[in-house]
Order: sequence, then structure tokens, then C-alpha cells
Amino acid sequence: MPNPDLALDDLAVGDSWSGGPITVTEADIIRFAREFDPQPMHTDPDVAAQGRFGGLIASGWHVASLVMRDFVDTAPFGATPMLGLRVDELQWLHPVRPGDILQIRREIVAIARSRSKPDRGTISMKMTVTNQDGAVVLSFLNLIQMPARSDAGA
Amino acid sequence: MPNPDLALDDLAVGDSWSGGPITVTEADIIRFAREFDPQPMHTDPDVAAQGRFGGLIASGWHVASLVMRDFVDTAPFGATPMLGLRVDELQWLHPVRPGDILQIRREIVAIARSRSKPDRGTISMKMTVTNQDGAVVLSFLNLIQMPARSDAGA
Repeated sequence: MPNPDLALDDLAVGDSWSGGPITVTEADIIRFAREFDPQPMHTDPDVAAQGRFGGLIASGWHVASLVMRDFVDTAPFGATPMLGLRVDELQWLHPVRPGDILQIRREIVAIARSRSKPDRGTISMKMTVTNQDGAVVLSFLNLIQMPARSDAGA
Repeated sequence: MPNPDLALDDLAVGDSWSGGPITVTEADIIRFAREFDPQPMHTDPDVAAQGRFGGLIASGWHVASLVMRDFVDTAPFGATPMLGLRVDELQWLHPVRPGDILQIRREIVAIARSRSKPDRGTISMKMTVTNQDGAVVLSFLNLIQMPARSDAGA
């Protein structure tokens, strides 16, 4: 669905898009974690190898940020101005390790037009991130505000 | 409560910690966004000045990542191994702009010992991030797994 500049009116529950592949490198894992999540499991391969995960794993916030980057790159709604309002049910379900190749599935699970402001509304989008083995590493619901055509409410 | 190496047994609903201050710079906003959220409202001060926020604002994932960094730095539970499992009700409530100085309040809102594995449990921690004017810019609930003393369940 590479359709530019979609409005709320153009979308339906069940519409979906794919993102990725995103290759996660050891260098990127360490660089992000040194700045934002400096715990040895994310920054020190030797210490991480002795830890509960048996090796370096990516910060969960790094993985979430990679999903954001992919969302901008794939631009499923074209140039439509959107605003991420809220995230729920964000779950880090499986470690992300150096060399992993991530795929993303995005699916609209709810659509709501604003009652007070009919020129806008929200969609709820389920994000599911899987690795090269098919394991779900991260999933979350993202509530996104986007424009609606003002005549569609008439 | 700068107590090292706390276990689940040492914590109570209502316990709270503070974090920050975190000063957010324009350079940091742009650098993060170029890598993870390259939209003009986050990367281009001139374009952002014409947009709905009237100036550059930080990527929401950048702000969340800064909260993670502060959590590691302040280490409210000392060296206790913990694992972030889940985030809910994450809401970006107010823009974060260059020069903002953020403060963080963390409060335990729920504690649950694992029924099947009494050596661990989860806490639910409410994170509230405010700016220098007292406006809440971000809040979320973080479900965190942490160790419990095995004799405490007896």
C-alpha cells in the first residue's frame, strides 16, 4: 500500500504494511547503549557472554528507535502529517543480538474519528517486529493522530 | 532511597525516586533524529519553526531513551539485575524543546511476586517526566522483573 498522503478516510482496520529488513550490528548496539543504556549486557561483549543472555543484546529502546526510523523511511501514509500520541502493550519478547535481521509488520487495529474535531482522528497500529528466525522480538500498539477530510463527517 | 542491591522484598507501593536534571540540547535533538526519526520537526529548525509546534521538538523516542539513561545513572536499585519487560500508557503529552531541563519522578504502583518462580517478581513503576515549567512531557508505566529472596515466600 505505497499510497501517498493518505487521510483517515482512506484507511480500514486490517490494512497492513511491512518494514525492514533492518540489520542490527554489534557496533550499533554498543554505540546506542553507551549513550542511552550503559549496562554491560548492552555495551560489553565479554561481560555479556557471562550473563543471563549469553551474549550482547540490544537495548530495548534501541530496537524501538529502529522501528521509528523504519516508519519514517517506509512512510506508509506518504507526507500526511501524523503525530504519535501514545504507546501501549510494548513488550520486549526476545533478545535482539548482533547480526539479527529484523522485519516489521504494521496493521491498523482501530480507527476513531474525533467527535469534537472532525478534521482529525486516530488510528491504532499494531507493530510486530520479528527476527530472521521468525521470533517476535518486540510488539506494541501505537496510537497515531492523523488528518481526516472534513467533508467525510457530513 | 539510594539503597544498593534491593530485592523485591525491600520495596513497597508508593516508594519513589527522582531523576534528572537532564538538559536537552538542539544538537542532541538533531543528532538523535537524523539517525532514528528524521522528520523535519526534529531535524530542521527552520522548517520546524513553520510547523505546528513553532520550533524544533525532540523525537519522542529520544526523550524515552534519555529516561532510560537516567535510570541507569541513578540506579535506584543498586546493582540488582533487572529486566524491563513491558511498557504501557506511554504518552507524549507536551513537546520537548532545545534548552528544556527535565526532571523525572519514579514511583512504584504495583508489586507482584511470581507464583511459579518465587525467586523473582515484577514491579510496575510509573515514570513521570516534567520540564522546567512543571509541564508533564512524558509518562509511562514500566513493568520490571527483579529478584526476590527465595525465603520470603515461605
